[in-house]
Amino acid sequence: MLTEHEISIRVRYHETDGQGHVHHANYFLFFELGRTELLRAAGHDYDQLEREGIHLVVSAISAQYFRPCRFGDVLKLRTRVTYAKGARVLHEYELLRDGEVVAVGQSTVACVDHEGKVKRLPKWLMST
Amino acid sequence: MLTEHEISIRVRYHETDGQGHVHHANYFLFFELGRTELLRAAGHDYDQLEREGIHLVVSAISAQYFRPCRFGDVLKLRTRVTYAKGARVLHEYELLRDGEVVAVGQSTVACVDHEGKVKRLPKWLMST
Amino acid sequence: MLTEHEISIRVRYHETDGQGHVHHANYFLFFELGRTELLRAAGHDYDQLEREGIHLVVSAISAQYFRPCRFGDVLKLRTRVTYAKGARVLHEYELLRDGEVVAVGQSTVACVDHEGKVKRLPKWLMST
Amino acid sequence: MLTEHEISIRVRYHETDGQGHVHHANYFLFFELGRTELLRAAGHDYDQLEREGIHLVVSAISAQYFRPCRFGDVLKLRTRVTYAKGARVLHEYELLRDGEVVAVGQSTVACVDHEGKVKRLPKWLMST
Repeated sequence: MLTEHEISIRVRYHETDGQGHVHHANYFLFFELGRTELLRAAGHDYDQLEREGIHLVVSAISAQYFRPCRFGDVLKLRTRVTYAKGARVLHEYELLRDGEVVAVGQSTVACVDHEGKVKRLPKWLMST
Repeated sequence: MLTEHEISIRVRYHETDGQGHVHHANYFLFFELGRTELLRAAGHDYDQLEREGIHLVVSAISAQYFRPCRFGDVLKLRTRVTYAKGARVLHEYELLRDGEVVAVGQSTVACVDHEGKVKRLPKWLMST
Repeated sequence: MLTEHEISIRVRYHETDGQGHVHHANYFLFFELGRTELLRAAGHDYDQLEREGIHLVVSAISAQYFRPCRFGDVLKLRTRVTYAKGARVLHEYELLRDGEVVAVGQSTVACVDHEGKVKRLPKWLMST
Repeated sequence: MLTEHEISIRVRYHETDGQGHVHHANYFLFFELGRTELLRAAGHDYDQLEREGIHLVVSAISAQYFRPCRFGDVLKLRTRVTYAKGARVLHEYELLRDGEVVAVGQSTVACVDHEGKVKRLPKWLMST
């Protein structure tokens, strides 16, 4: 499967906080957008996953922030799958503005069934 | 059923926007809190509703804003049922700070079943 | 000034709620996006407004919902200025999916200075 | 200064996502609440910090999730300062439901001035 994808994100006003900066929790919404768009770019989507009885849940996530982002900023988000085996997918994220990295992130997504039980990834999601 | 309830809300930091004020969309989250806490104060909750096959969906909502609210403000929210018959419940909201009304709101909630079809309210939710 | 604009919005996962539908408060974030993109399409932006000592604050807003929206839905939002004189701008919103109107909205935005005092709109923002 | 504090959080409906679980990004809003309430319990608040020309910005944050949380769940959040020297404060978070840990987190907050330059913590914020 495709393991890297880049999207463009324009900061929305409501994503900023009382200091005029994008609130740190909102970066995780950007990362989620990166994951879903990577999946879509690979020709898949969550509907397909659900039809296969698969739910992807975040089991760990982190971010490091280097520069504040503001309303109207146009950011580039690079999402990369670094591991996809067994029941886990690991992603790395790089958020850039004008070529400068403003934040990075890492996440672990677990594959579970309808009852929340761990389940092996479908073949097409695994990296080789 | 109980038709009026008051709760206290302390503004959280992430609820403010780039101007340092509570973002206008977040007042609707306060109103939702008012509705669910009114229901709880009446001895009911959404779980019970779902067991009865009932979903409450907002079909119309509005707010008028008079004063900005800031991080740390302690607000008082008065939620009042003004109509509850057939398949609809109407609420009115008054948000106060130190006795002054800072915003008001109105909403219409529709009662639907699992497929989204309109459904009569259960008796205990109706006003007489 | 340009008084009508259309944008495309793809529903993000975190914008849905426990019923799998876009949470009703999030439509107001879409409307805000419609306003800021209308302004941008007209060749202006909020930075320019702030340099002119202008803040636009929502003083009243409302929405009526007809059909639920889901994660991945691609929506079309039409934002229209219906009045822009004195210190107020009124907007109307129409949200469509596959040609069907799923929600509509209305808002009143007030023009204020740094201290929150009402202020006349700059000429370029007024409708004639 | 006080280095540990516990608060109670009732999950709000809009905090859940399409799977009916609290969205993973919202845990960071809970953690922020833990930090501000710890500060308040110690007799301080952000207004005081701003008067002293201090801004606290999150420079790194992470969470690990063990059990999903649902609308109406009553959670206990333990926030602990593990380091507070120079220009940095480190916190650890433990989120519990009925005595069971459902998630944990860690964050690094940096002390900066109005222009975003790193600045030493005020004495009263330092741990000894």
